[in-house]
Amino acid sequence: MRRGVVLFVALSLTPLLDKAGSAQDGKVSEATEHCIECHAVVTPAIVGDWKNSRHARVTPGEALSRAKLQRRVSADQIKEDLSQTVVGCAECHSLNPEAHKDAFDHSDQKVHITVTPRDCAVCHPVETDQYQKNLMSHARVNLVKNPVYGSLARAVNGLQSLKGMRLSSADSDEKTDADSCYHCHGTAVEVKGNRTKETNWGEMEFPILSGWPNQGVGRFNPDGSMGSCTACHSRHQFSIQVARKPYTCSQCHKGPDVPAFKAFEVSKHANLVKSLEGQWDFKEVPWTLGKDVFAPTCAVCHVSLFVSPEGEVIAERTHQMADRLPWRIFGVIYAHPHPKSPDTSVIKNKEGLPLPTSLNGELAAEFLISPEEQQQRRERLQKVCLNCHSSQWVSGHWERFENTIRTTDAMTLTATELVTKAWQENVADKTNMFDEAIEKQWVEQWFFYANSTRFASAMMGADYGVFENGRWYMAKNTQEMLDRLKFLLSIKTREK
Amino acid sequence: MRRGVVLFVALSLTPLLDKAGSAQDGKVSEATEHCIECHAVVTPAIVGDWKNSRHARVTPGEALSRAKLQRRVSADQIKEDLSQTVVGCAECHSLNPEAHKDAFDHSDQKVHITVTPRDCAVCHPVETDQYQKNLMSHARVNLVKNPVYGSLARAVNGLQSLKGMRLSSADSDEKTDADSCYHCHGTAVEVKGNRTKETNWGEMEFPILSGWPNQGVGRFNPDGSMGSCTACHSRHQFSIQVARKPYTCSQCHKGPDVPAFKAFEVSKHANLVKSLEGQWDFKEVPWTLGKDVFAPTCAVCHVSLFVSPEGEVIAERTHQMADRLPWRIFGVIYAHPHPKSPDTSVIKNKEGLPLPTSLNGELAAEFLISPEEQQQRRERLQKVCLNCHSSQWVSGHWERFENTIRTTDAMTLTATELVTKAWQENVADKTNMFDEAIEKQWVEQWFFYANSTRFASAMMGADYGVFENGRWYMAKNTQEMLDRLKFLLSIKTREK
Amino acid sequence: MRRGVVLFVALSLTPLLDKAGSAQDGKVSEATEHCIECHAVVTPAIVGDWKNSRHARVTPGEALSRAKLQRRVSADQIKEDLSQTVVGCAECHSLNPEAHKDAFDHSDQKVHITVTPRDCAVCHPVETDQYQKNLMSHARVNLVKNPVYGSLARAVNGLQSLKGMRLSSADSDEKTDADSCYHCHGTAVEVKGNRTKETNWGEMEFPILSGWPNQGVGRFNPDGSMGSCTACHSRHQFSIQVARKPYTCSQCHKGPDVPAFKAFEVSKHANLVKSLEGQWDFKEVPWTLGKDVFAPTCAVCHVSLFVSPEGEVIAERTHQMADRLPWRIFGVIYAHPHPKSPDTSVIKNKEGLPLPTSLNGELAAEFLISPEEQQQRRERLQKVCLNCHSSQWVSGHWERFENTIRTTDAMTLTATELVTKAWQENVADKTNMFDEAIEKQWVEQWFFYANSTRFASAMMGADYGVFENGRWYMAKNTQEMLDRLKFLLSIKTREK
Repeated sequence: MRRGVVLFVALSLTPLLDKAGSAQDGKVSEATEHCIECHAVVTPAIVGDWKNSRHARVTPGEALSRAKLQRRVSADQIKEDLSQTVVGCAECHSLNPEAHKDAFDHSDQKVHITVTPRDCAVCHPVETDQYQKNLMSHARVNLVKNPVYGSLARAVNGLQSLKGMRLSSADSDEKTDADSCYHCHGTAVEVKGNRTKETNWGEMEFPILSGWPNQGVGRFNPDGSMGSCTACHSRHQFSIQVARKPYTCSQCHKGPDVPAFKAFEVSKHANLVKSLEGQWDFKEVPWTLGKDVFAPTCAVCHVSLFVSPEGEVIAERTHQMADRLPWRIFGVIYAHPHPKSPDTSVIKNKEGLPLPTSLNGELAAEFLISPEEQQQRRERLQKVCLNCHSSQWVSGHWERFENTIRTTDAMTLTATELVTKAWQENVADKTNMFDEAIEKQWVEQWFFYANSTRFASAMMGADYGVFENGRWYMAKNTQEMLDRLKFLLSIKTREK
Repeated sequence: MRRGVVLFVALSLTPLLDKAGSAQDGKVSEATEHCIECHAVVTPAIVGDWKNSRHARVTPGEALSRAKLQRRVSADQIKEDLSQTVVGCAECHSLNPEAHKDAFDHSDQKVHITVTPRDCAVCHPVETDQYQKNLMSHARVNLVKNPVYGSLARAVNGLQSLKGMRLSSADSDEKTDADSCYHCHGTAVEVKGNRTKETNWGEMEFPILSGWPNQGVGRFNPDGSMGSCTACHSRHQFSIQVARKPYTCSQCHKGPDVPAFKAFEVSKHANLVKSLEGQWDFKEVPWTLGKDVFAPTCAVCHVSLFVSPEGEVIAERTHQMADRLPWRIFGVIYAHPHPKSPDTSVIKNKEGLPLPTSLNGELAAEFLISPEEQQQRRERLQKVCLNCHSSQWVSGHWERFENTIRTTDAMTLTATELVTKAWQENVADKTNMFDEAIEKQWVEQWFFYANSTRFASAMMGADYGVFENGRWYMAKNTQEMLDRLKFLLSIKTREK
Repeated sequence: MRRGVVLFVALSLTPLLDKAGSAQDGKVSEATEHCIECHAVVTPAIVGDWKNSRHARVTPGEALSRAKLQRRVSADQIKEDLSQTVVGCAECHSLNPEAHKDAFDHSDQKVHITVTPRDCAVCHPVETDQYQKNLMSHARVNLVKNPVYGSLARAVNGLQSLKGMRLSSADSDEKTDADSCYHCHGTAVEVKGNRTKETNWGEMEFPILSGWPNQGVGRFNPDGSMGSCTACHSRHQFSIQVARKPYTCSQCHKGPDVPAFKAFEVSKHANLVKSLEGQWDFKEVPWTLGKDVFAPTCAVCHVSLFVSPEGEVIAERTHQMADRLPWRIFGVIYAHPHPKSPDTSVIKNKEGLPLPTSLNGELAAEFLISPEEQQQRRERLQKVCLNCHSSQWVSGHWERFENTIRTTDAMTLTATELVTKAWQENVADKTNMFDEAIEKQWVEQWFFYANSTRFASAMMGADYGVFENGRWYMAKNTQEMLDRLKFLLSIKTREK
């Protein structure tokens, strides 16, 4: 296979060189050569991975020379010292040393471990700027500053112990949180000291990092920035193919709370992707719908720049991914217009809680985008649909989807009334809203079943929203909550 | 394998042109050229998709000139006006205008939106005829005419509201039904009026369709036909590769009620498909087992024409997919011999319900195929197995599978006895058999767990039928039903 | 896209022959030619499959002539009569006839149906020896000799019937066991007599085998050996590509009890594999990380020989797969250091049960590997990680993983205390620890949720270990067990 690839590549040389610059010509900086000298031995596979990357072949200068639409860099200009060599170890791992608290002296260079969005911004500033307005860059801060989410995390991760006929729950520990919520949301990476390590090249000193490893989308970085580009742009090949394939999104969007990938997976769109992806081109920039790819992946609808076969721009690239989303269907607790600010901890609902809706579904409207803004985003997304579908098709689909928002919210309200009765009757304790059995049933109503139904509706993965994890369970769950409520009341009565 | 690919590709150069006609030569009709003129701008990606199709390259006349086994059309002859141009927009979207209530005047042509099996039958009549005898073409009518399924749909999709300590359920709304059951089963697409729309080419009038969009297998079409070929033959590339890959079937056969794909997915067959599919040929007609493909996909066992490496026909193509199926293992409520008629609403069980078995498992035998017919279908499917496996292997497998039918039915009977006791003791209300918690547990016994166990057994996806969604849950579910029954009886006693 | 493939393939012709020996030259033995004569007609696809195999192209003699690292055979020498022809039907199906109770006279040859590890050992002795020390080769014997597992199997597979308000459970039947537990663990394949069958070539006699078909990893074979190489090395192509892809492991490691594949599937590693596998080389021996493949599959971490791009051996091939595993995270009932012997039925815990831990988590330490041995295995696996990750990255990851072992065990202990209270209060019957509803909840705590959380942690598939099937359910399950315990106590009180 490998040999074949070599030959295949060799033959395609002319167009390729034209496009990407040649590997032979790609000038590696002295600093990076110095890194590779040892790291080809210490971490050979990651070096091999990088050698297969576009970064290893194209200099920023060459990248900038492409026609605007074909560029993968968004900087208007790039400093001379970076623009004439390919993008190697030293180029990224020694940027902005003054901001990097994790920078350390390493084999005659000042390097840091954690490459951050601020580092990537040297060549990709537009994407970084957009990403800072993306909810994802705030995925960590929105958890840590929100006490409601804190009590949910405790109800999930805290160890329970049995005392008599009571279960009590401890706070969750840091390692567990890093291994669960913060794996995707991002840890806080901070320098906690230094350690000395014996290596092949003698004793060396390295900073000790907390919260490491982590590639969560809202990671706190040692340079003060938030986010992690490598969450989606996997090291060290950084292949655009990977970011454009749905498997990347599925790393964090697969569980029952936010099952975007699973709902997509049963759609006709995903069927086409899975059946034919080997014959499509996931590398071309700009991407042409109807020529490079013939059905949407996550990236097509929500992120990528793409053009029609005639070369007309249909959608602009965006890393503020809610740009094309009128609704936040990830119901906490009900679906709602997207928050205005990526920092959702500023929200106060009518009960004073930092949630976008009240417990009975009323919107914290002043913190959410307006109907007009919703309409703009709806049209932006529909413009993608319209490449393949008629306007009647598209509006028919959207009417069903927005009807599903209403019906799933109604079923959540019913479940909320049941748990509220339990709180009122003192058979459940509202202090932590998420830790008792009937409360957990309530959480599943909105967090699992209503969310799943909405994702299935949004992406035409109907099967997922009926019996897999959707309407069937919403309907069953309220019935089971009612039975449990009756039971809790029955033992309360008898205990009197 | 690679060698096979080498030869195949190298050698296919000529035959490819030969076979498919070249895109350059493919004559596009004037009418279709007229469509493309605007639609390359309005819906560019779907036009691009079509341009990659075989339809865009081969005329029906050329298709008919192939040797019988290599043909992808089944008509004996095709009218002159259709046979000399490739199959473009106009060719399909303007067929049978008199039957099409959705036909409308559009840029000097009479076109319709919904292409139906009756339209496809112009070139593919054998497949269409077979499909009309397939349960799938009746997937909608069998739901809407069956009040038992109606009450199940209501118990899944109807909104519940809490009044005091009772939950009451509303009828489900049309959009929800279209987004859940009817997404796969098919909606009723009917003309509900006209609308005027401003376009780049001035004001245009379009029919308003109900139930649109939809590609369900049993769709009611505006020309009076039932079904939708595009359910499996995805627009507008209509690639046979897609229909032959299991991802197509998975769109509707993945949920816990009918988890054919999931059970397949853990089998050795699926392992081979997933590991090697990139090196197989999913396009060739006829398909050669042991040369083009080396392990079965859904299509190999249930649909496709294929031949041995010597060219002998092993299985005929069929679109009446129960042709090779002795049992309907999709237990409603118990597994049973396949219904004689695709219209299952004609069935009456001993209790007078339109179900193939009574609640205690007795067959409504006069509506089901005979043991002799079962044996013929069993042998037809086993003939596929025998291409790779010995007769002892095959009979050993089938004995286990048919034993699983018996044991899963026995476990369903136990659950039925439990729910029947609840009905007899008036702690559950049989008016709707599917809406209370204990009833829903009963439904899951047959609809989820017994079905899943049978699919796992049929396709050697053992793992799925044990702990994933099979025997473990059947066993647990009866125990939990017993506990719930005790609880319901306990609060009934106390309420006295 | 297609054009690239054509060129790539056309050019690879020469190196291909060079590498693998050419099919033209591969000498097929007379005996095998005799088999093929008929079997190309009787089982054409499996013959076609074999023709695509390396076995059909390379003689053992040629295989032995390769440089050591490139060899796929491990024998030092191979008998003359086998070394000069390719490995065909007769070569494997007539080995060791004296040991094979299933050997029979068939068309002038003495052949047997079941090819066993002992047969494969003629060319692959090192792998076979290692495999005999692998827990997997004992997967059947460890079930059948362990009465605790026996009562679990009965609680899963036994049919339940309702008598009054009691459910009683029968023993499970042999066909069901073969279709569930023993599908993966292995059946006992024994000769049970002979049968005569009419064939195209007249009447023929065949042995009747029990437990057939089966390819379980711990199968009892008619030659007295245990195991089945074809469990992972699928017949009759035996492609190393298949064994190296994760879909093979997923056949048995996907269910909620041992969800290795599902946890892997949401990791960045799996994302890279799924996004790019079509561009990697899964055939090369030795395998080069950072050149052939760029992210781990199951085989990379646990089985394969691989080298650095510089050719240095990083990991030796092993078929004793726990070699790189310090912990057995498949908690029965708690995670524990790996057992010393692959025969786990010799273990006795402090309660006298054949389990590696007591019910409260105390290790049956004398039967388990020492901390020192654990450390060696930990380092062996970490050596794989270190190809791409820094030592700080790796130790950070492992600290979290080993913390997860502690927290999941703590949550299992809480659930054990709840079920123990039920046993003590006589509201559940410990005779079979696995058959009542509250007991099944307890089983799910360790068998599903704690196991899933640990696998997710081990393989950085965080999403799987939080809401999919992990910590959320561990926390919910204890709460629901508490409610059920209260209910059981409440009806016990009232029954007095």
